[in-house]
Amino acid sequence: MLALTILGSNSAIPAFGRNPTAQLLQTEECSFLIDCGEGTQTQLARYKLRNSKLSYIFISHLHGDHYFGLIGLLTSMSLLNRTQELHVYGPEPLGKIIDIQLEAGEVSLNYPLHFHPLKQEGIICQTGKMEIQCFKMQHRIECWGFLFREIKNPRSVDTVKAKSYEIPLAFYEQLKKGENYIHKDGRIIQNAEVTTAAPKARSYAYCADTLYDENIANKIKGADLIYHESTYLKEEQEKAFQRYHSTTIQAANIAKIAETKQLIIGHFSSKYEKLEAFLAEAKEVFENTALAVEGSCYKI
Amino acid sequence: MLALTILGSNSAIPAFGRNPTAQLLQTEECSFLIDCGEGTQTQLARYKLRNSKLSYIFISHLHGDHYFGLIGLLTSMSLLNRTQELHVYGPEPLGKIIDIQLEAGEVSLNYPLHFHPLKQEGIICQTGKMEIQCFKMQHRIECWGFLFREIKNPRSVDTVKAKSYEIPLAFYEQLKKGENYIHKDGRIIQNAEVTTAAPKARSYAYCADTLYDENIANKIKGADLIYHESTYLKEEQEKAFQRYHSTTIQAANIAKIAETKQLIIGHFSSKYEKLEAFLAEAKEVFENTALAVEGSCYKI
Repeated sequence: MLALTILGSNSAIPAFGRNPTAQLLQTEECSFLIDCGEGTQTQLARYKLRNSKLSYIFISHLHGDHYFGLIGLLTSMSLLNRTQELHVYGPEPLGKIIDIQLEAGEVSLNYPLHFHPLKQEGIICQTGKMEIQCFKMQHRIECWGFLFREIKNPRSVDTVKAKSYEIPLAFYEQLKKGENYIHKDGRIIQNAEVTTAAPKARSYAYCADTLYDENIANKIKGADLIYHESTYLKEEQEKAFQRYHSTTIQAANIAKIAETKQLIIGHFSSKYEKLEAFLAEAKEVFENTALAVEGSCYKI
Repeated sequence: MLALTILGSNSAIPAFGRNPTAQLLQTEECSFLIDCGEGTQTQLARYKLRNSKLSYIFISHLHGDHYFGLIGLLTSMSLLNRTQELHVYGPEPLGKIIDIQLEAGEVSLNYPLHFHPLKQEGIICQTGKMEIQCFKMQHRIECWGFLFREIKNPRSVDTVKAKSYEIPLAFYEQLKKGENYIHKDGRIIQNAEVTTAAPKARSYAYCADTLYDENIANKIKGADLIYHESTYLKEEQEKAFQRYHSTTIQAANIAKIAETKQLIIGHFSSKYEKLEAFLAEAKEVFENTALAVEGSCYKI
């Protein structure tokens, strides 16, 4: 299972019943919270998403609509007697922002909290089954995107066939890596003859607040599902540029260049009550686009 | 007009649809926000309470359920192009907590924000028509209550009557203060003959998180309306004591000693879904008690 639930989709201020940005990516192993606008703890409860499986939180940048709900979530989990450790990744000042608030309230969390400041692009954490990379967005302040990728399992050896080719057990690890076997009689046993590939590793790319930047598309190329901010409609391209944001068309272009299967757009400006035009415009460029509607869940 | 609207009534974590603590006290002149738990900006919008009249915010203490919504409200008002100044009163570390978050987001507020750290009991601010005092609560960390009192208007002079007694205009200011007039023929003109008292100055006392402390009742004696926390039912008196909180009976006792007209109880523990017992217990001691139900408005 790899499932993404939208918890908030609005930019800047809550409006029209839309909450600020937050998303939960669930796997069988654990859950990943991506951004945490004000009210995220309430949204998690509304959609009956358990905090007990939440082990990692990623904060893209320190504009309030992406993290003002974090301190409330962290302290509430403690009040609810959480004991398992939690990892938070985000721009460096976030660590101090958390600490100063815990200190002011003389709050000692009930669980180990590990804060990891983001410093450079690359792999920032690995769970048993997932690997998470961060990459830079082009925003007014330091801002990161996140790529969640399943760790590809090794190929499976068909032991019956392998035995029939007299391949020694000691060579199985190499078979799993895809190597061919050279039989003592000189025959080359093709790897595909005796192994099968693991299912394709799935991936999800979260592109937070950003200018249109095709480099981003290259960094997330081939991701199965991409979320890209689309604060404005295409007519507001100039405003989007001035404010370091993107339009529908720009988000859809990134999806197209990145050759993804599906695009989700969100971070809608509070000036728009209705969102139909967002969907229509993005679909002009990239057909398989969906709106980040709160409560909706996308299986990858 | 002096009207109190409850925006949040729960303690610790949001639960059963109840939000953390926040209240809005409205006068014709301006509005006062008292505490600002997470989601307060959304609650203000839900009840169509205008931020444009909000000029003063008072934070009782730095437990998250009383202030985690503040930074979001402050930044949202800026995004909504507020220009008039805003005064925030609270424990000293709050100033730093606000600043560090504005700095991290490189946010420059669109309006002047004045932070006033609370240092000692007494009058902390005066608007044209109201005077606000703070007083100490007995909580686990530094915690303040607030007493909002109308500034009493001077007596009104009945100019027709005053002229009939040949009282000179120059003496009117003394009449307004309640002084009698000695006529040149020696007669004493009683002040009440020629003036009428202004309506009684109304007052509201907000008693935030606290142990039961009768000193508090003395500090707010005669307030027309009192809010007092009541985190627990009476059977949990020992737990309330350990956690520096109060029970229904204790809150009602404070109301009784303070000789108020009406008591509102709130800050309900998240372990209680139904609140009927809170009301019943408090009424055993102080009949005119109401529950702090979100959205309800109390005219003083």
